[in-house]
Amino acid sequence: MPDPTYDQLIARLKRIDVFRSILGILHWDEQVNLPPDSADRRAQQLQELASVHHAAAADPEIGRLLSVLESRDLPPGSDADVVVRHARRDFDRASRLPEDFVREKAALDSAAFHAWARARKNSDFPAFAPFLERQIVMARREAEFMGWGDRPYDYSIDLHDPGLDTAFIAPLFASLRRELPPLARRIAASRPATAPNMFRGFSIPAQREFIREALDRVGFNWNRGRLDTSLHPFCGGDALDTRLTTRFDENNPLDAIFSSIHEAGHALYEQGLPETDIGTPLGEAVGMAIHESQSRLWENQVGRSPQFWAFFEPRLRFHFGPQLTPISSAELLAAINDVRPGPIRVDADEVTYNLHILMRFDLEMALFEGRLSVADLPCEWNRLSEDLLGITPADDAHGVLQDVHWSSGSFGYFPSYALGNMIAAQLWYHALCELPGLPEDFARGQFSRLLAWLRDKVHRRGKRLDTQELIVAATGQPLGTSALLRHLSERYLTNA
Amino acid sequence: MPDPTYDQLIARLKRIDVFRSILGILHWDEQVNLPPDSADRRAQQLQELASVHHAAAADPEIGRLLSVLESRDLPPGSDADVVVRHARRDFDRASRLPEDFVREKAALDSAAFHAWARARKNSDFPAFAPFLERQIVMARREAEFMGWGDRPYDYSIDLHDPGLDTAFIAPLFASLRRELPPLARRIAASRPATAPNMFRGFSIPAQREFIREALDRVGFNWNRGRLDTSLHPFCGGDALDTRLTTRFDENNPLDAIFSSIHEAGHALYEQGLPETDIGTPLGEAVGMAIHESQSRLWENQVGRSPQFWAFFEPRLRFHFGPQLTPISSAELLAAINDVRPGPIRVDADEVTYNLHILMRFDLEMALFEGRLSVADLPCEWNRLSEDLLGITPADDAHGVLQDVHWSSGSFGYFPSYALGNMIAAQLWYHALCELPGLPEDFARGQFSRLLAWLRDKVHRRGKRLDTQELIVAATGQPLGTSALLRHLSERYLTNA
Repeated sequence: MPDPTYDQLIARLKRIDVFRSILGILHWDEQVNLPPDSADRRAQQLQELASVHHAAAADPEIGRLLSVLESRDLPPGSDADVVVRHARRDFDRASRLPEDFVREKAALDSAAFHAWARARKNSDFPAFAPFLERQIVMARREAEFMGWGDRPYDYSIDLHDPGLDTAFIAPLFASLRRELPPLARRIAASRPATAPNMFRGFSIPAQREFIREALDRVGFNWNRGRLDTSLHPFCGGDALDTRLTTRFDENNPLDAIFSSIHEAGHALYEQGLPETDIGTPLGEAVGMAIHESQSRLWENQVGRSPQFWAFFEPRLRFHFGPQLTPISSAELLAAINDVRPGPIRVDADEVTYNLHILMRFDLEMALFEGRLSVADLPCEWNRLSEDLLGITPADDAHGVLQDVHWSSGSFGYFPSYALGNMIAAQLWYHALCELPGLPEDFARGQFSRLLAWLRDKVHRRGKRLDTQELIVAATGQPLGTSALLRHLSERYLTNA
Repeated sequence: MPDPTYDQLIARLKRIDVFRSILGILHWDEQVNLPPDSADRRAQQLQELASVHHAAAADPEIGRLLSVLESRDLPPGSDADVVVRHARRDFDRASRLPEDFVREKAALDSAAFHAWARARKNSDFPAFAPFLERQIVMARREAEFMGWGDRPYDYSIDLHDPGLDTAFIAPLFASLRRELPPLARRIAASRPATAPNMFRGFSIPAQREFIREALDRVGFNWNRGRLDTSLHPFCGGDALDTRLTTRFDENNPLDAIFSSIHEAGHALYEQGLPETDIGTPLGEAVGMAIHESQSRLWENQVGRSPQFWAFFEPRLRFHFGPQLTPISSAELLAAINDVRPGPIRVDADEVTYNLHILMRFDLEMALFEGRLSVADLPCEWNRLSEDLLGITPADDAHGVLQDVHWSSGSFGYFPSYALGNMIAAQLWYHALCELPGLPEDFARGQFSRLLAWLRDKVHRRGKRLDTQELIVAATGQPLGTSALLRHLSERYLTNA
C-alpha cells in the first residue's frame, strides 16, 4: 500500500545519497585527475558540498518522518523496518554532533594528517603524538554525544561495522592469535625462495590490457565503471558509476594485477546492490568487514588460486611472451603466493596480513581502555611486532607511523580487514560446498556461478541483514576462524 | 576601509561560484569519463546540484545586501560598482524566473535536444519545428519576466554578451555582408588545390606530445589544467582547474592541433583572470564575444601564421618524420590555411566561417521580429546559404538542422563567434603596433610578450569593462570590420 510518509523519507534519503555520490566523484577526480595547483579549489568544492550534504542529512524533517514511522510498529526485519532503523542511526549521527565539534574535528583531521605525513617522513613519533592524543579525545567525545560514552571503542567499531563490537571480535582475534603465528612460521619455512627482481619490463599498456580481460571475466560491468591510475589503489565513485584505480610498475606486474582484482571485488559488491534501492539502506553495503570480504575473496581465494592461473597464465604469456620466457609456471605461481613476514601491513601476504591487524586491534583497545599511553605506543608496537611477526621495525616510520588511519581518528577500522579475511574464507568454503566444481570453472575462465552466488547471498541484500546475521544466513554458521585457517593451510601447506 | 556588507556579498558570490565550478567538473567528467550506463546517475547529480546552485544564487539575502550597497552611490566604474551591477543582474535573473517556468524550460530543453538529434539523423525538420517554436515562445516569456519584453532578441544577446544588442551588431554584420562574400570568392579562387587525404597514420600519442609542447610554449599552465579527449572539443572546468579537451584522428592531425590551440586560447583567458577575484565579476570573463576573440586569436592570427610554423614545423617533422616526408613546407602551410566554402559551420575555415554566422544572425532576427515563421525557416536557410556561401545544403541535416544551439533555446549566441573573429583581428593589429617584432617572436617559439599584452589588456580586467569599453580601451577604437578584412586579405591574398 502506498505510504506517503515512507515515500518522502525514501526520496530524502536518495537525495542525500546523490550529494554523497558527487563527493565520491570529486574525491576520485582528486586522486586521478587533479592538477597539482588546483588542490585549494578542490578543497573549497569538497567543503561546500560536504556542508550541503550534512544539511540534507541533518534536516529536522527527516527526524519528523522517522518519528512518525517509528510509532507504527513496523514488522522487525521488514524492508521498512530496515530502512527506518538505519536512517535513524544516520540521522542521529548527522544531527547530534554540535557544529563546533564538527568544525574542530575537521580542522584537527587536516592538521593531524599533515603532522603525520611529516612525522612519518622524519620517523619522528613525538611530533605526531599530541595529534593522536587529541584524536583519541575527540573519538571519546563523539561517542559521548552519540550515547556511547561508556563504550567509545565499540562506538568506533560500530561506525564501520554496525552491530559488531569488541565482545564479538576479541575472542575471534584471540583464537587467531593462538593459531596463526605458528602456522605462518610453518608456511614461511615451507615456501620456495623467490628470486628478487624476477619481473622486468612489463609494459604498462599491456598490463592494462591483461587486467581489462581479467576484470571482464570476473564480471566487472564496464558500462557502469572505469579503471584508472592513482597513487594508492581504491574503489571510488558509487554503485551506479564505479571507479576503480590501480597503479602500475613495469617491474612488478603482480602489484597492479592483484590490486585491480581486489578493488574489483569491492566493485562487484557495489554493482550488485539492488538498483532500485540505491541511496537507501536496502541498497547499501552492510559494512566494511563484509565489503572487505568481497575484495579479499576475489583477490585471494579466487585470484591467487592455481585454477585461476591455469586459465590466465596463457593470457599473461600472450601479453608478455619474452618477459615471461625465463619464468616457469611453478615460479610464477610461487611469486603469486609468496609468503614472508615484513614490517609493512600494506605489503603483507594473505597469511601474515592478519597478524598486522591483531597488533593494531590490541593497541587500539589498550589506548581506549587507558591501559596504554600514546607515549608508550611505539615501544608497545615494536614489542607486539616482534612477538607476532618476529620483526622489530627499523624505525617508527616503518612501525607505528606507517598507517594513515589514526591521523584522521579512524579507530576501529583495522579489525574489518582481518574480519573480511575470515568472512571471505567462510563464504568460500560454503560456496565450494554449494557449487560443486567451482575451481574447475575458474580454470575455464568462468566466474559467473560464483558471482551469482555472491549476488544472491550478499550483494543484493543491501543492509537487510547485519554483519553477523548475513554470515549465518549465507554460510549456516556464525563467524569463526577455522575457515581462514583451513584456507591458509590448504593453500600453503598441502600444495607446498 | 572594511565594509562588512560588501564582504558578505563577496563571500556569497564566491560560494555560488564554487557550486558552479563543481557543475563544471561534473559536465567535463560527463564528456570525458562517464561510463555509458551511468548517464542517469549523472543527470540526477547535475539536477540536485543545479538546484543547490540556484537556491544559493536566488537567496533573498543577496537581494538585501545588494539593496544596501546600491543605496550608497558607489563611484561608477569602481570595483564595488562593477561587482554590485553584475551581481544585481545575476541575482535578478536567478530570482525573477518563476519556478514553474524554470521547470518547464528544463523539461523542454531535454525533450527538444532529443527531438533535434533524431530530426537531424533523419533530416526531418518538421519533426523538430514544434520544439523550436516552443523554444522561441519560452525565450520571449523569459525576456518578459526580466523586463525585456519589447526586445526579446536583444535580451538573448545580452545574456551572452552583456551590453551588446542588435543595434550594435547589425551594422557591423551588414558591412561584413557587403565585403566578405566577394573577398571569400577571390581568396578561394587564388588558393592552391590541396591534395585530399594528404595526412595518413599520425600516431595519437605523438600528436598528444606535439600538442603538449605547443600548449607549453603558448603558456598554458599545466599545474592548473589538463588536456583530455572528448567527442567535441571544449574548454571546461574553471579558471583554477582548466580542463581542455580535443579529439584525435590519425588521418587528420590538424584537427586536434587547431582545436587544442583554440581551446587553449579560451584557457589562457580563464587562467589569466585575477586569482583573488575568482568567483566575483572582477574575476570573470566579460562575455562570449571576448572569450571567442581569445580562442580565435591564438588559433588563427597566431596558430595559422607562417612564423608559428617556422618554429613548429621542425617539431612536427621531429614527431612525424616518415609521415611528413612527402609533404613540402609549402603544402603543409597551404593545408593549414585551406579556404573553401562548405555547408557545415564547424568545419569552416576562418574566412567563410563568418558567412555562416551572418546567416544565423539574419534568421534569428527575422524569427524574433516575426518576419519569418519556423515553417519557412529551411527554405530561407537554403536561400541565404546559396546567396552567401554559394552552396545549397544537400538536405536539412546539413543545413538548418546542423547546429545544436536552437534546440536548447540558445538564441543570440551565434553572433559572438563572428564578433570574436572581429575582435581578435582588431586586438591583433593593435598588439602588432605596440609590440614591434611580434611575429618574429613566434618564429623563435616565444609567445610571452603577446600573452603578457593580452593579460594586461583583457584577462586581468575581469568584468571591469564591458565588451565595447574593453575593445576601445585595448585597441583605441570601437569595434569595426576593417581589421578582420585586412587580416584575411593580408594572409590569404598578399601571400597567395
